[in-house]
Amino acid sequence: MSGHATSLRLKLPAICFLLQLLTIILFAVYVRYDEETSANLWHQKLRHHNGSNLDNDFYFRYPSFQDVHTMIFIGFGFLMTFLKRYGFSSVAFNFLIAAFAIQWSTLIQGFLHSFHNGKIHVGIESMINADFCSGAILISFGAVLGKTSPVQLLLMTLLEVTLFGINEYILLILLCYQAKDAGGSMTIHTFGAYFGLTVSRLLYRPHLNKSRQREGSVYHSDLFAMIGTIYLWLFWPSFNSAVTAHGDDQHRTVLNTYFSLAASTLATFAISSLINGEGKLDMVHIQNAALAGGVVVGTSAEMMLTPFGAMIAGFLAGTISTLGFKFITPILDSKLKIQDTCGVHNLHGLPGVLGALLGALVAGLATQDVYGDGLPITLKYWPQPLPKGGTLFIPPPVYFPPGGILKMSFLASPPDTQCFEDQIYWEVRLDLGTL
Amino acid sequence: MSGHATSLRLKLPAICFLLQLLTIILFAVYVRYDEETSANLWHQKLRHHNGSNLDNDFYFRYPSFQDVHTMIFIGFGFLMTFLKRYGFSSVAFNFLIAAFAIQWSTLIQGFLHSFHNGKIHVGIESMINADFCSGAILISFGAVLGKTSPVQLLLMTLLEVTLFGINEYILLILLCYQAKDAGGSMTIHTFGAYFGLTVSRLLYRPHLNKSRQREGSVYHSDLFAMIGTIYLWLFWPSFNSAVTAHGDDQHRTVLNTYFSLAASTLATFAISSLINGEGKLDMVHIQNAALAGGVVVGTSAEMMLTPFGAMIAGFLAGTISTLGFKFITPILDSKLKIQDTCGVHNLHGLPGVLGALLGALVAGLATQDVYGDGLPITLKYWPQPLPKGGTLFIPPPVYFPPGGILKMSFLASPPDTQCFEDQIYWEVRLDLGTL
Amino acid sequence: MSGHATSLRLKLPAICFLLQLLTIILFAVYVRYDEETSANLWHQKLRHHNGSNLDNDFYFRYPSFQDVHTMIFIGFGFLMTFLKRYGFSSVAFNFLIAAFAIQWSTLIQGFLHSFHNGKIHVGIESMINADFCSGAILISFGAVLGKTSPVQLLLMTLLEVTLFGINEYILLILLCYQAKDAGGSMTIHTFGAYFGLTVSRLLYRPHLNKSRQREGSVYHSDLFAMIGTIYLWLFWPSFNSAVTAHGDDQHRTVLNTYFSLAASTLATFAISSLINGEGKLDMVHIQNAALAGGVVVGTSAEMMLTPFGAMIAGFLAGTISTLGFKFITPILDSKLKIQDTCGVHNLHGLPGVLGALLGALVAGLATQDVYGDGLPITLKYWPQPLPKGGTLFIPPPVYFPPGGILKMSFLASPPDTQCFEDQIYWEVRLDLGTL
Repeated sequence: MSGHATSLRLKLPAICFLLQLLTIILFAVYVRYDEETSANLWHQKLRHHNGSNLDNDFYFRYPSFQDVHTMIFIGFGFLMTFLKRYGFSSVAFNFLIAAFAIQWSTLIQGFLHSFHNGKIHVGIESMINADFCSGAILISFGAVLGKTSPVQLLLMTLLEVTLFGINEYILLILLCYQAKDAGGSMTIHTFGAYFGLTVSRLLYRPHLNKSRQREGSVYHSDLFAMIGTIYLWLFWPSFNSAVTAHGDDQHRTVLNTYFSLAASTLATFAISSLINGEGKLDMVHIQNAALAGGVVVGTSAEMMLTPFGAMIAGFLAGTISTLGFKFITPILDSKLKIQDTCGVHNLHGLPGVLGALLGALVAGLATQDVYGDGLPITLKYWPQPLPKGGTLFIPPPVYFPPGGILKMSFLASPPDTQCFEDQIYWEVRLDLGTL
Repeated sequence: MSGHATSLRLKLPAICFLLQLLTIILFAVYVRYDEETSANLWHQKLRHHNGSNLDNDFYFRYPSFQDVHTMIFIGFGFLMTFLKRYGFSSVAFNFLIAAFAIQWSTLIQGFLHSFHNGKIHVGIESMINADFCSGAILISFGAVLGKTSPVQLLLMTLLEVTLFGINEYILLILLCYQAKDAGGSMTIHTFGAYFGLTVSRLLYRPHLNKSRQREGSVYHSDLFAMIGTIYLWLFWPSFNSAVTAHGDDQHRTVLNTYFSLAASTLATFAISSLINGEGKLDMVHIQNAALAGGVVVGTSAEMMLTPFGAMIAGFLAGTISTLGFKFITPILDSKLKIQDTCGVHNLHGLPGVLGALLGALVAGLATQDVYGDGLPITLKYWPQPLPKGGTLFIPPPVYFPPGGILKMSFLASPPDTQCFEDQIYWEVRLDLGTL
Repeated sequence: MSGHATSLRLKLPAICFLLQLLTIILFAVYVRYDEETSANLWHQKLRHHNGSNLDNDFYFRYPSFQDVHTMIFIGFGFLMTFLKRYGFSSVAFNFLIAAFAIQWSTLIQGFLHSFHNGKIHVGIESMINADFCSGAILISFGAVLGKTSPVQLLLMTLLEVTLFGINEYILLILLCYQAKDAGGSMTIHTFGAYFGLTVSRLLYRPHLNKSRQREGSVYHSDLFAMIGTIYLWLFWPSFNSAVTAHGDDQHRTVLNTYFSLAASTLATFAISSLINGEGKLDMVHIQNAALAGGVVVGTSAEMMLTPFGAMIAGFLAGTISTLGFKFITPILDSKLKIQDTCGVHNLHGLPGVLGALLGALVAGLATQDVYGDGLPITLKYWPQPLPKGGTLFIPPPVYFPPGGILKMSFLASPPDTQCFEDQIYWEVRLDLGTL
């Protein structure tokens, strides 16, 4: 019976306990406070450098971190509540997998990027990077939304976080020595989107039409989704700037992202009403494409992109993203058998690729005249812009083996008739039949 | 047919493209990174002053900016979702016009306030000021909510942002040399309210009763509106302090606003239950009048208002605002032909005027004894408090010509029978008939 | 008639006016700007110490304050909107009592903790502490939610804030000289929970079954509640660190709380599905027990708890809290006549007690080797961990006399047939009968 097969009773506790136990053991062995969070090390540092407690990086990164944190848990979580009967699962599975992803990615990123003397040292920067990685996982979640159990999602998180770390390592360390992608156009958005689309392809459901009547929104669910949209939009400047260099870099990243987002919003409203037969606006576009301005400057916002350059980028991204929802999503489904519930290809995939190319372009145009003394700081990381743009398309086939694991039959996946439905995983007090 | 006349198909794309294109061109010609966002200029400054990247004003203004940003897009946006069938338009048109207003006001305020060597220089302060200006636009939006198309609203934004800049220039530069109104009791709230009321008067609809059945709330729409209310209330201390001087000024502004808001909340609950025939509370009052404590100290919160002075101001503002909803709004409608959908006269108009008078009073009472060395910094800007109070009432007639432009017939305005209705501008998936 | 007895018409205005008037008078006599908010004092300090305006503590505490402020008004307010017909009262009474609590606790905490030369000096730290105290009141509100009028709640706030100050004074000053409990495991969570449960016991309603049909959620009300949950979860690191010492202390508190919350989230999902007969998840658990990780490290997060230690604590707290909802809440009701609407015993009571014991344990294990120069700063406040753990259980009987005052018959309390019902206190525009 489908009721039995989707029961979480033993499966979800088992995977939660195992993953949390494994994490705790690895943390006990490998994870330590860093120089800014350890009582001992920080006070040594203060003594040796005659420093002040107010120099602790906490004061210069924590507000940005909290904005990113809000994007991950409120922004992504509520953005996905647009489905009429899947609000509990959207916001709560988002909560669950992000809560695991931040723990697991602290380990994976620690092993790959900051493993010194056999230990991983944690503090505000590791927290931001862990939240960033969970953003990629949630993008992938958007592609498979409504068609996966929380057991599958936790397993996907385990695998994807690991691949995210490896992909980042290859892209930023091996291929382009010390390249940076602060807002993650490539490492977060492009990776998260194409990983999610690959998984969605592997889990292709030929009979999804049996659940299509639940794959839309109702009036109030679209308003809940707007909470997610607006928070993502508001805090995207913090997302792109959270780990850029202190000073003008962080300040400029915020400014560029702010203008890019404003322009992508106007583009989205324009294109949404233009492509609608009756001259009406579509909430799906506003909820998603207006954010493309944040994605597209993820790589380049820390550079001297200029405010009008940011606006042009944002306007193009909003346009392309809205067109994608109208014209590309149906083709992905019918021709490529990729069922992309939230349209992550339009919001994160296309604008992410565009953002990587833009980053390469702006890096290529950098001159000493424009950057002054700021040049070495900003651009020493950009020696090989073109290969970097090129590496974007390598990963997807690599995702097949891990993605395939998610097809295993005992993972409480919903049947084709019960997709986009909270009642199979939740005690729902109101009969939802009327929605 | 009304369906045809309200189609956004060509009109909305046309105005969005034109405005965004114009903005991009003007930005390309005039807008440059300022000393704190330009790689070149910032590193020059660091070299010449032996400074640190952590001295960048980003770290001291950005958290305040993000609070203001949240008020503009979440606060105003959700506050207006109280209407039962106008939630999409409320939050999304708010989003659209604010996204344009922040771009356009960067130009207008730049030309009028910070035009140096033929260029406008942008950074965190220009971002805060642009958000402030968009606050005034959204106040006006509240007055005409449900009765205007997005095309009209973008045109209104274009005109009002321009007038906002001129009004601010006249008030703060010409009339009162270097006067300041950090929290905008005058420049934002009073201006925004009376501009909006003027536009509402010009667009007077004698047959609005055909849409009155939709001019109320339903249970869940009032809860969405409370998201807006609470965020506005929480972050008002940041709004009033975002551009005040660093140090005690900013700190004191926050503290005064916090106490004023707390007192206006108690006043609102008290008066709301007092004036209701059955002794019940009214959500409209709680959603709006509780915020009057923030408006009323907009000018004076940076002064030595004293905590109990802030409480008295807040208590009076909450009282007057609640009474205004009960007794003045119906008179404005029936006698003056001003249909004020959100009651902005009660939340922003009256408390704004009161706040200007309070600012003049507290400035007049300032002594060296109370301010010490802080006197010149705080009060050199307040040499002519009374004329400033007096200028409040000059603007409204000036708004007639620009407001009149909005009456043009091809702007996709809703017919009298279709006001407060999302379905004319939006693809609405659920039949809203039952709400 | 019950309609008459619950009318707020004279009672609510009377108590609001009296309390606000009393507060304003006491503020006028006793409350002054502190050294960082007074123009005079701050500029004296700058002159004497050659300081900078950017050293004002505003810049190092205000972002944390705003996070706490959001938890109090959005977090607690929306968490309690889960009831199907009590959303207005939940978010708005939360608003009212917190607005009064922050004023009254500024006075009480000022008299007991920072009364110098006959004056209370206020600034960002007093604001944070006032918000903390209001958190305890809102925890108690959760226990009596739906069964009390706003008049009763304001009276409860008056009494509880006063007792909160005395309890904190006894616990942290008298019993354990200079003990600290920065995140309030004891002073806020344990106190708030047991005070609320005591009041709920005193107001026991034997015929509450007449209102039980309204004591549940509907689909959308559970989503509103998740807004509250997620914001509480996101900003709990700021709550626990808001008043810890600057530098590594604040940074480490944030990090430990972040990991503890992540682990308690996995535990909650695991146990929720394990104890449900059909293997489904329960929104009540996710909304509440996932937060237990924040409560449990309230005392110990500033210590060298280690990241994996924080995870173990969070995992245990999430487990115990979820089990409490399933097994203890029904027993409290049936055996002890304690009707705990929100289950505050499970979220704040049990994890608070556990957190106090954990604090004593971690303090007892502290060594010079682990803390280095940071030891005196962190641990000089922890000389008597065990008595402190023991004082937890002293207060409840003390709450009886003040709690009993709330039983007075003229306080507009709802009848047993009208509990959990907005319509007795609110103008409700939609007939709620169908919910």
